[in-house]
This record gives sequence, structure tokens and C-alpha cells, in this order.
Amino acid sequence: MKRRQILTALGVGVLSAALAGCGGSNEESTVTSTDSITPKQKTYNWKLVTSWPKNFPGLGTAPERFADMVTEMSGGRLNVKVYGAGELVPALEVFDAVQNGTAEMGHSGAYYWKGKNPATQFFTAVPFGLNAQEMSSWLHNGGGMELWDELYAQFNLKPFAGGSTGVQMAGWFNRKIESLEDLKGLKMRIPGLGGEVLKRLGGSPVNVPGGELFTALQTGSIDATEWVGPYNDMAFGLYKAAKYYYYPGWHEPGSTLEFTVNLEAWNALPDDLKAIVEAATKATHLSMLDEYTARNNAALQQLKNDHGVEVLKLPDDVLAGLHKVADTVAAEVAASNPSAGKIYASFKKFAEQAQEYHQISEMAYYDARQL
Amino acid sequence: MKRRQILTALGVGVLSAALAGCGGSNEESTVTSTDSITPKQKTYNWKLVTSWPKNFPGLGTAPERFADMVTEMSGGRLNVKVYGAGELVPALEVFDAVQNGTAEMGHSGAYYWKGKNPATQFFTAVPFGLNAQEMSSWLHNGGGMELWDELYAQFNLKPFAGGSTGVQMAGWFNRKIESLEDLKGLKMRIPGLGGEVLKRLGGSPVNVPGGELFTALQTGSIDATEWVGPYNDMAFGLYKAAKYYYYPGWHEPGSTLEFTVNLEAWNALPDDLKAIVEAATKATHLSMLDEYTARNNAALQQLKNDHGVEVLKLPDDVLAGLHKVADTVAAEVAASNPSAGKIYASFKKFAEQAQEYHQISEMAYYDARQL
Repeated sequence: MKRRQILTALGVGVLSAALAGCGGSNEESTVTSTDSITPKQKTYNWKLVTSWPKNFPGLGTAPERFADMVTEMSGGRLNVKVYGAGELVPALEVFDAVQNGTAEMGHSGAYYWKGKNPATQFFTAVPFGLNAQEMSSWLHNGGGMELWDELYAQFNLKPFAGGSTGVQMAGWFNRKIESLEDLKGLKMRIPGLGGEVLKRLGGSPVNVPGGELFTALQTGSIDATEWVGPYNDMAFGLYKAAKYYYYPGWHEPGSTLEFTVNLEAWNALPDDLKAIVEAATKATHLSMLDEYTARNNAALQQLKNDHGVEVLKLPDDVLAGLHKVADTVAAEVAASNPSAGKIYASFKKFAEQAQEYHQISEMAYYDARQL
Repeated sequence: MKRRQILTALGVGVLSAALAGCGGSNEESTVTSTDSITPKQKTYNWKLVTSWPKNFPGLGTAPERFADMVTEMSGGRLNVKVYGAGELVPALEVFDAVQNGTAEMGHSGAYYWKGKNPATQFFTAVPFGLNAQEMSSWLHNGGGMELWDELYAQFNLKPFAGGSTGVQMAGWFNRKIESLEDLKGLKMRIPGLGGEVLKRLGGSPVNVPGGELFTALQTGSIDATEWVGPYNDMAFGLYKAAKYYYYPGWHEPGSTLEFTVNLEAWNALPDDLKAIVEAATKATHLSMLDEYTARNNAALQQLKNDHGVEVLKLPDDVLAGLHKVADTVAAEVAASNPSAGKIYASFKKFAEQAQEYHQISEMAYYDARQL
């Protein structure tokens, strides 16, 4: 089951026939109380479907933590039951399931829904875009959340930021990358906008489910793969199947997860439970980055000291070349429809200011600390 | 009143006689219901005293946001009323007021209480220590919170992280800093461990209340001052009184604020209200950094473009010299008592791992984005 769960959860863009049969049972109506009592006395039983295996480290533990918090804060008036990928609906049907009310909530990544609107990708990860701190600030204080609300309202959904992994690693490679030429013909598992960037530079982005990455690397059916960061990567044993571990994760600098709520379910909640759900999403958003930061710190030590992993930096000219193409790719997404254009304009303006400020604050501080 | 409030709020280490008379009224018992009903039906009315002027941007708006959230989430069962500095107790008596139950909660900065135990400083800002992301992770996933709980339990308090300003700016200077020699005789407003570092290098750290900084700079009674960052600094007009704006803020790389709760008041809460308070502190912790990031981005643009501010980097050899002394100062605090030693050991171990990981993740990403 574990292998199937991981396959289900994390093969972005791969929705195999096998997965289509994973839909779980459709449970009964979720409001257990009658209409004759006030909303404040009602008990709400919500389903939360996710794109992750149940309790998958970091990504899957976040919605569990959210559910526990909400149940406790509401004194049991709003009970949230979490379903792993494939338990109720397959990993990549979370969006649809929440939209149509099969579940009241979902936890996933917005970039999985680029088929609905390419603009969704701006709410997860933009190559050379915002990092975790900046994404959270853009969403909550820079106008991003309002744009996300507007986009998702068209799909009968209310979104919330649902955690961040921080900047990811560039990935595991069995070929040294010394110039842009080395990307030509590179078969690499890399989803989303990052994959499109690789393609423009002559590489072959391929879709491989998470659970098959180790074998794909080991047998040479792929030359490289990105995954998340030291914590999740070590758990998959990728260091045993690849020679080099490259940084930095230019393609996903602050990958942000999402909670979605069915709009009718949301509107039916009394104000106190709405406030509880919103605060719990924020606490969860914070907690995921807290957890990834601590676990990645520790896992990097193990990878280097216990497993002898060689960590290499992508050369500057490779990064510069990727950056140039990434801006073109993002601009093309922005041009694909008016709402994508509006969202990217807001994102880009924020990114320009954030880059200028962080150059003299966070970035300069990291530099100073090395001295 | 405004000037007095600012003076009250932010003159760290300055507790003037004038302030001692600012204590507000002592209101009546805060649990309005009787003992015959269950805790779940009780209404709790809490006072929250702060070290900031009421609604002071960033620092003062955070506890207001917290109070609104708690009142809404609890459906009015836990009502939190926020008091600005001097309204109920002076800015620097927040710790005592919560300890002795004058107020159920406080919002302040732990480093103000170094007179209680020098170890409190490790929970706010350590020169060349953890930045905002790292502090939050150390506290919530690296053992920091447990140590903070243990330290504050001795004072009848339960602490929570209550926001972060992010890395601060090195400050406003009327003297160019080109070598460590230039720090000699420098009269600068800089509190906490950073001030001690300056002193060891021949400077004169002085205490000047926030509201008097502008005049002190303009009249030459000080040569330099640090404050917070572009957003708060611009509001005080410091750019009109100083020639150079230096970065990075080596002395406060991720200043963390605190909520404190009186332990008896905490223990008297039913579990659902405890969960609500805890989640609200986390949401507030996230929101403050979100707000500072967005406002600092925008304020830096205004300072540079509208006010012609010259932003300069402290030279590397100056930063290296400050770093060396900073480590000595922190080690001395750690040696001052067993609990300080235990806390600093945990902080330092986390910092070493975080620095190594962030060198190849966040820091390398900031670099790559510039290419």
C-alpha cells in the first residue's frame, strides 16, 4: 500500500489508470444536526481529502495537525477527518472533489491544477520567484490572497495558504552540470514551470511518480530528479542512486501548499468556526516551514556525514541561463488569460520590491554571518 | 501622549521616574461567570498589557489582531482587551504585571527582562544568530519552546512566540564606518547584546527612547542609532537626521516578540480556549513577519526614491570583527547561570546546522536570483 500511496500522491502530472480506481466510499451528509437549532449549536463533520499519503512526513502531517487543532478549538463542533490520497479520491482529484462537495476541504498544491487555469501555478512556485517568507507576505499582505480568492471563487472554492517547504534542492544528478550544454538531452523528473524551462534548454522533463524515483535513477531510465529537500529526499534513499546533489532549487524557491474549502460549506459555517478554520490554516502554514527547516537542517548533516553525499552548486552561468528562460515561461503563462496576467503583474511587482529589500536584509545577513 | 507612549514603549533599558507613575487602574476579577457552571460556559475577560503604544505599527497592531481573533474564535467566551504601554502598567513592567496577575497576558520582547535572567535575551535576538525563519523553527521544532517554558515557569508565566520583525537594519549613521577603528568613540543607541558588542569595540552604546531619536541624531548628541527597519524607521523620519543608512542588521537578525500568559489564568482555561489562544499566537507570529516583509519592501522604495537615502553596506572586516566579539558576549551570557548555558547550547547547535543548510538553500537561492 505504501508504494501505491506514494505513487498516488506525488506523481505530479501522472494520473495513471491504476489510480482512477482508488476512489473511496462516499459518506453521508456531513452536518449531523438539524436545521431547527442555531448554527452555533450544530456539529459539523467535514472530510478533508489530500494529495499525500496519510501522514506523509511534512506534507501529510500538516493537514492532520490542522484537523486536530480545529476539532480541539471548536470543542468538537467542527470535526475534520483527513483522508490520504486514494482513500476517498485519487491524489489529483482533490480540487474537483472539494469543488463538487464530495469533501468539504482539500490539502494539495495549486500548481497541480494548471489544467483548470495556468494561473494556479503562481500560487505554488515560480522559478526564480518568491521564497517562503516572501510568498507568505505577498499572499497575506501584498494582495495575493485576494487574487487567489477571486480565481478560486470561479471554481466554488475558498483557498488558504497551507504550508511551505522552503526553498527546495535542485536535485539528484548522475551527470555533472558544468554548462548549459550539459542540460541538453538530460532526462529529468521535474514538474511544473521548472520542467518547461528545462525543455526549452534542450532537456527532457519526464513524469515519474515519487515511489519509482529510486529505481528510475538506479536503472538509468532518468539522469536526474528533483524531489523536495534533504528531509524528504533522504527518506526515499535517493542518495544511493545518484552521484551528485545539486543546489539551489531555482525551480521551486518557496513551494506553497494550499487548503481549499468548498464555498457552500464555508458559507454555512457560523463566524466563530470560520475564524477557527482561518487561524488553523495560518498556524499550519507556519508549522510546516518550521518543521521543514528543522528536519532539513538535521537531514543534511546525515546525508553529508553518514552517507558521504557530495553537495554541488549549479554554476552561475547555468543559473543565469535558467533564469532568463524562466522569465519567458512565466510571461507566457501570464499572457494566457486575463486573470493570469493580473496575478502575475501583482506577483512580479512584489517580487521586484522584495528582491531589492532582501538583498540588503536577509541575503546580506546570510553573507555577513559567514564572515 | 504620543511622545510619552513611544518613550514608554521603546526606550529599552530606560525606565524613567516619569514612567513609574503610569500604572493604570486595577480592574476587577476577570472571570465573570460563577463557579457553579462548567468552564465551557464561562466567559473570561482578559487584560493584555503591552510594551508598545496602542496600535504602534507592526508591534502594536499584532496584539490587537490576536485579541480580535481570540474573541471571534471563542464566540465571545474569551474576550481580550489590549492596553498600550502606560495605560495599565508602564512598558517595562509587562513581565511583572503578568507574573503577579495584574493582567492575564502580555506582549513584549524577552530581552527586556535580562535583569530577571540574562538567558531571556536568547529568545529575542542574538547578534549573528538565527534569523526569523530559523528562530521560529528552533522554538517550535528544535526544542527552544520547551526551554522557554521551563525558564518562564519559574516566573509563573507561559510564553509563546509573538511575531518577528525579520532582520533589522544596522542603523542610521552620521559617521562613515570604514573600519573597526571608526566604531571607537561612536555614540550609538543600540540595546541588548548588540550594545555590549559595540562597547567592547570602543563604542558608547547609549539608551535613548524612540521618541527622542530624531532630535538626538539631529543635535549630534548621538552619532548613530539602530531602530527596526525601513517601515518603522521612515515613520520616525530618521532619514532627515542622518547621512547614511547601513545594513545588514547583525545585532538583531530576526527579533522575536513574545506573548506571556499568567500561569494560573492559563491553567484555569478549558482545553478549547487553550487551543484557541495557542493557535492565535501562531497566526499572529506569522502575520507580523508577513506584514513587516511587505511594508519594509515598500518603505525601502520610498526612502531611496522619494527621500534620496544612501544605503551602505558595513565593510566585511567590520562585520567579521563584530561577529568575533558577539560570540564572546553570547558565551559570557551562557556562562552566567546553568539555565542560560542549557538554552545557549541548544540555540548554538541549531544555529550551526541551520547555517550549513541555509548556505545551500535560502542563501544560495538569494544569490542565484541576482544572476
